[in-house]
Amino acid sequence: MPVKVINLANKLSLFSDQWSPKIIGQMNDYHVKLAKIQGDFVWHSHSETDELFLVVEGSMVIHFRDGNIDVSSGEMCVVPKGVEHKPSAANQCSILLIEPIGTVNTGDAGGELTAADDDWI
Amino acid sequence: MPVKVINLANKLSLFSDQWSPKIIGQMNDYHVKLAKIQGDFVWHSHSETDELFLVVEGSMVIHFRDGNIDVSSGEMCVVPKGVEHKPSAANQCSILLIEPIGTVNTGDAGGELTAADDDWI
Repeated sequence: MPVKVINLANKLSLFSDQWSPKIIGQMNDYHVKLAKIQGDFVWHSHSETDELFLVVEGSMVIHFRDGNIDVSSGEMCVVPKGVEHKPSAANQCSILLIEPIGTVNTGDAGGELTAADDDWI
Repeated sequence: MPVKVINLANKLSLFSDQWSPKIIGQMNDYHVKLAKIQGDFVWHSHSETDELFLVVEGSMVIHFRDGNIDVSSGEMCVVPKGVEHKPSAANQCSILLIEPIGTVNTGDAGGELTAADDDWI
């Protein structure tokens, strides 16, 4: 059997650290990740790639230089490459991310919130 | 504002035809699609790409030559490129697909279930 079923709730139950994406799958040269977020992330952009956000539980805000969007459970968005953004969440929010293998969470910004990019669960 | 919020339930309310994926987003050279499925699809494979399935509502079975998997709401899987599979669903099931732009739903099999690959909603 070549294919595993990945249950998002089960995977989310395996970790509690925030702003530290965990890889749950691979499609071609892309990783599928889950992350728990709360509070404000750093302003950053990814010069080489778009980034897909799908909210699994809760609600987040993505700040852009020209406005904000609210993204809630069952909603998704794609942040285009090169566009500065700052994810935030008043309460803990669980998100699914899809981006090329090796994409760093803080993009061009770096800093203490930079997470490992090879953390499978 | 460069980014739109895509509500999966709202998008699903816009169509009723089955086995006819609708594009809801683009990330780099990949399309994000929604489809409603019921009954049996055709055996097929995609020689050039993996294919991500995420079940949004309901439950589906993916048949492989060496067994089956059940994928239910909140679960996902990645079918590797070249692996023959046959999606099916006893009751209507809504799924999110991610695959490279231009990927044809019936892969190498063709036939009457082949859908357009440029149908945005």
